[in-house]
Amino acid sequence: MRSPVELCLTALPDFPQVASGDDLAALAVSALARGGLALRSDDVLVFAQKVISKAEGRRIDLATVVPSAAALDLARTVQKDPRLVELVLRESRRVVRTTKDVLIVEHRLGLIMANAGIDQSNVADAAGGEFALLLPEDPDSSAVRLRDRLRVLTGCEPGVVISDSFGRPWRVGTVGVAIGCAGFPATLDLRGQPDLFGRPLRVTVVGHADEIASAASVLMGQGGEARPVILVRGVGSRAPHQPAAALIRPPQQDLFR
Amino acid sequence: MRSPVELCLTALPDFPQVASGDDLAALAVSALARGGLALRSDDVLVFAQKVISKAEGRRIDLATVVPSAAALDLARTVQKDPRLVELVLRESRRVVRTTKDVLIVEHRLGLIMANAGIDQSNVADAAGGEFALLLPEDPDSSAVRLRDRLRVLTGCEPGVVISDSFGRPWRVGTVGVAIGCAGFPATLDLRGQPDLFGRPLRVTVVGHADEIASAASVLMGQGGEARPVILVRGVGSRAPHQPAAALIRPPQQDLFR
Repeated sequence: MRSPVELCLTALPDFPQVASGDDLAALAVSALARGGLALRSDDVLVFAQKVISKAEGRRIDLATVVPSAAALDLARTVQKDPRLVELVLRESRRVVRTTKDVLIVEHRLGLIMANAGIDQSNVADAAGGEFALLLPEDPDSSAVRLRDRLRVLTGCEPGVVISDSFGRPWRVGTVGVAIGCAGFPATLDLRGQPDLFGRPLRVTVVGHADEIASAASVLMGQGGEARPVILVRGVGSRAPHQPAAALIRPPQQDLFR
Repeated sequence: MRSPVELCLTALPDFPQVASGDDLAALAVSALARGGLALRSDDVLVFAQKVISKAEGRRIDLATVVPSAAALDLARTVQKDPRLVELVLRESRRVVRTTKDVLIVEHRLGLIMANAGIDQSNVADAAGGEFALLLPEDPDSSAVRLRDRLRVLTGCEPGVVISDSFGRPWRVGTVGVAIGCAGFPATLDLRGQPDLFGRPLRVTVVGHADEIASAASVLMGQGGEARPVILVRGVGSRAPHQPAAALIRPPQQDLFR
């Protein structure tokens, strides 16, 4: 495989606020038109998780959440809203690490992340109600549906990535990662390919969709939804299709659980 | 701060093989000219660690390395060349995790990484000698020197990132990270900025230079040196300058050591 020599990312202009039930593919197509951008099948569209969650109705009114005893306990340790902690526990398989202000869990999807990916910023209503936004039920399926819908609307089948921002052990700051992926290899396996001198490459699997999510994150801006959809042109190979679930390291291969 | 709306990355064409003592800035300027690209002060140039290490003479002839008893012991556990393990130990503060084929250490720079960043692929000579390539002595200083030299040669002061590929806990595949940074904020601190609804952002520090290194990695291709230098246009703000050392999480704030 030859890597491409140019990669261009463009934020779709004036993407509107998204509400439950919105047709995100149609919104993206309109935004592409506003930007004078014609979608191509070798493009990748990166969608911020927040707009997917909003369109899929994953907003929860905190007034409806009754914390369990376990959530109340844990909320004291991490010093977070017990209703939020209750939602985190419902969305998680297990708690990985806790300390003041930090609640790292294994999400039911297998993602190890802070707060089960639940976000409170940018989720409000005009009446000042308090809401939390859960991750999509199944972001890989969301990506497939978006790709299908884009094909219907445009005749093109771009790659689709759903991105979130994750903190990391050992390093400061969040980076974009792929929690959903369609029409696109989430990882590139270079095992067995020789290097320039013919020696087999040893470090060999690349977190391809994560790198693309990180690139898109530079344009999205952290926390804001002003630019939730990024067109990426020049990524190269479309095959084989592989979901973002392939980016989750199997527990038995993980030394840091 | 407004994030940019377009980010374009271009691999500098036909970058030559690099040898000890080479003037990388001059090689980059020639490659930019070949590509018809005029450097601007608001650009960022991302250099693969390997070409920095080669130019700085960090290639070690394995025939000159005598493994210590500790290296011989550890080499049996991880099933690697004892001479390579000896170099890893010399470059490290401590061993973090080991198992067959895996040797994760805290590098003397504070980076937690496999094999202290020492690479054996793409490092050979015509006579078939075996060599290993260490990380640069001080990649942040390397980045500053490159930037200074680029200014002398072109009158422009671009940002400079030195990138490497790191594996990660919990996730499959390597991604590009910044181990050196100059003229450029390695992290973006958004603390205190309101979200779209005026609620203060909570997840607030972005691994900015890491995201740019990941974006560049899509074009570099893993393991190859065919495209070791990537021009990044559209990154936005240049201030404040902050080294890549700022991306290393202080041990007392790290729950996964």
